[in-house]
Amino acid sequence: MIVTTETDATLRGLLRHLIDFGPLSRPELGEGVGLARATTSSLVNDLMRRGLVGEIPTPPQGRRGRPTTLLDVDDDRYASLGLEIGLDRILVAAYTPRGGQLLRVERPAEPEPGNPRALLRVAAGALREVADSVAATGRIPLGAGVCVPGLVDASSGTVKYVPSLGWHDVALRAGVADALGGAALGGSVLVDSDANYAALAERRARLRDGAAGTSLVYLTGTYGISAGIITGDRLWRGARGLAGDVGHIMLDPGGKRCVCGRSGCFETRAGLAGIVRTALAGHRRRGPARSLADAVEETVRLAQRGDSTVLDALAEAGRWLGRGAAVVSALLDPGAVVLGGHYARLAPWMLDPAREAYAAAVLTPGGEAPGLEVSMLGPWGPVEGAALSVLLALTEGSLPLPDPVS
Amino acid sequence: MIVTTETDATLRGLLRHLIDFGPLSRPELGEGVGLARATTSSLVNDLMRRGLVGEIPTPPQGRRGRPTTLLDVDDDRYASLGLEIGLDRILVAAYTPRGGQLLRVERPAEPEPGNPRALLRVAAGALREVADSVAATGRIPLGAGVCVPGLVDASSGTVKYVPSLGWHDVALRAGVADALGGAALGGSVLVDSDANYAALAERRARLRDGAAGTSLVYLTGTYGISAGIITGDRLWRGARGLAGDVGHIMLDPGGKRCVCGRSGCFETRAGLAGIVRTALAGHRRRGPARSLADAVEETVRLAQRGDSTVLDALAEAGRWLGRGAAVVSALLDPGAVVLGGHYARLAPWMLDPAREAYAAAVLTPGGEAPGLEVSMLGPWGPVEGAALSVLLALTEGSLPLPDPVS
Repeated sequence: MIVTTETDATLRGLLRHLIDFGPLSRPELGEGVGLARATTSSLVNDLMRRGLVGEIPTPPQGRRGRPTTLLDVDDDRYASLGLEIGLDRILVAAYTPRGGQLLRVERPAEPEPGNPRALLRVAAGALREVADSVAATGRIPLGAGVCVPGLVDASSGTVKYVPSLGWHDVALRAGVADALGGAALGGSVLVDSDANYAALAERRARLRDGAAGTSLVYLTGTYGISAGIITGDRLWRGARGLAGDVGHIMLDPGGKRCVCGRSGCFETRAGLAGIVRTALAGHRRRGPARSLADAVEETVRLAQRGDSTVLDALAEAGRWLGRGAAVVSALLDPGAVVLGGHYARLAPWMLDPAREAYAAAVLTPGGEAPGLEVSMLGPWGPVEGAALSVLLALTEGSLPLPDPVS
Repeated sequence: MIVTTETDATLRGLLRHLIDFGPLSRPELGEGVGLARATTSSLVNDLMRRGLVGEIPTPPQGRRGRPTTLLDVDDDRYASLGLEIGLDRILVAAYTPRGGQLLRVERPAEPEPGNPRALLRVAAGALREVADSVAATGRIPLGAGVCVPGLVDASSGTVKYVPSLGWHDVALRAGVADALGGAALGGSVLVDSDANYAALAERRARLRDGAAGTSLVYLTGTYGISAGIITGDRLWRGARGLAGDVGHIMLDPGGKRCVCGRSGCFETRAGLAGIVRTALAGHRRRGPARSLADAVEETVRLAQRGDSTVLDALAEAGRWLGRGAAVVSALLDPGAVVLGGHYARLAPWMLDPAREAYAAAVLTPGGEAPGLEVSMLGPWGPVEGAALSVLLALTEGSLPLPDPVS
């Protein structure tokens, strides 16, 4: 924590409320955080001098009555960056503070298991390129969020374990910062799992879509299954940064052998690696190994053609996905359980069976249970959330607020 | 929220920090909440005028060097009450703000399924009696926390479902307040589940015992299994107040039929109702049905004598308890998973097999996993937590801070 005065903490609270619920009138903002009008007004002026909050003079459509000046996160001065290191590609993008996309770069990547150095150099190169391009337009990059599909200890900046990349105990934050070589973003690199960042982006999308609650559990649909957990209004990362490791909960004792060495893990039944393997078993192509994304597209084509092996495999995996989601739901009662990543692409064939199994498995006194829903994000969701995490870090005191400009 | 000024919110933050980490010196307190020295000093004076914070002139043993005046929650002016409505008894107690016990009352109770009115009258009567006795000593009762072993929506004050009492949708807070008839505590009744309150008390006990982290999941060992979940520094109750309903997650598909109508629920394998039924199957007594506590004691006696049926039943239940705890651990990575209620009594026979199954079921890159531990609380744990919840409500703005005395 770098908070030093009562006012700093309150500034952060106001900024957070605008990130979540803006645009808002001054009275709405004051009420939202429980502050008297005069205090709100002077703190908003402070945030405006820092370039973090701006006025929207014209009321947005749908608000009738006398025009009100609304406040929102200022969208003009800063940028934040997101980077995802995946199995076969690196995604980097820059966004405005409200999430408007400024620039995207996609790079193919070939990880060497056990040697993350080369991959980190490619990633940092792409990150620097995007940061430089954004800076050339006059925007100030606030920082970058970096994620991988695995277990990450965000507080120490260390990757614990990424099975698909063959990474164990990699100092991700230091590695990216080193490879950036003291460029603009050197001091402001945050790291986390793809699941956590996607959960942040999903939360923002749902708030903007009018969702009442802000808690959710986001289930990744990549090779394995991880969860990004938002309880209340913030990520729950776990006491050791290992929360959300749902792929290896035992759902089916005596079931299939898992890569982790045990049997019956959630992932063996509802993970995408297994789904595409089963679905495409009768349709093997000779030639180079395809990426997971390609295998998913091939599965989609076969499902669209009505291939019964594929349809059965997707329905069965959907039922297990529903059972796993029910465990999450019973334990956490989040606002929603969200199916992300490739699950969204396969939802036309997996969602109904998943919902049926889910409904049968959740105990619902009075019929209440979290919805089982498809993610509102596209494939860039984790990257969007990575960029959003930089803004949130300002509100949590893990990054300093930019100084006021006189 | 009833916060109206920046300072009110900061006062609450200071009080919360002292409840969790007191006694502290002024500089320690200021650093802990990120406040400058002058601000801390004036706000501490405010809290002292309200009778909420006091000075401890003598340094406690073990602190060497020059004497420092330490601050802590004032233990002299106020009291808070806790009430637990169980299947066969009602427990009420009053505590000082730091948790010192002032008074305990235990009443036998016989619930009529579907008719909570009579039970609520008995409970409110006992509560009023304790509040009156405490007030007669000159202390001011701040409020009471009331809990039942089931699903409770704390925000609406409603019990959703308590299988063992036969309660569905009972307006618990209103019912207790009505039965109190406008007595001293009329406006300050809070309600929650026994699991949530026990988790609060467990967290305090662990902090005082020197625990580093403050997150935990407390598993109740009553008829069924529920979880009290603390993520970071507060209870996570769920979007609908239904979090922690772990008893009915499916651990053993195709397993035993559960009271909920499904099969293979965690509770069928590791719940106490089933454990004592299996353990005592060969030792049926004629005569009136005994309470769960009596059955547990009978089980303990047989285990101590080395009865192999009983020992096998406890070991097998312990293994399933470990598997269920592993699900909680993988999803949430709490500071600890804590076995509460009667599990603590049966730990000599259940804990080792539980830990073995737990270790085999958690994925541990680098060998890290939350500890599986026995609760530090006795049978009054939920009642202690209920009383603590009243103090926490002051810090969360759900109860108003008492006015300063000039």
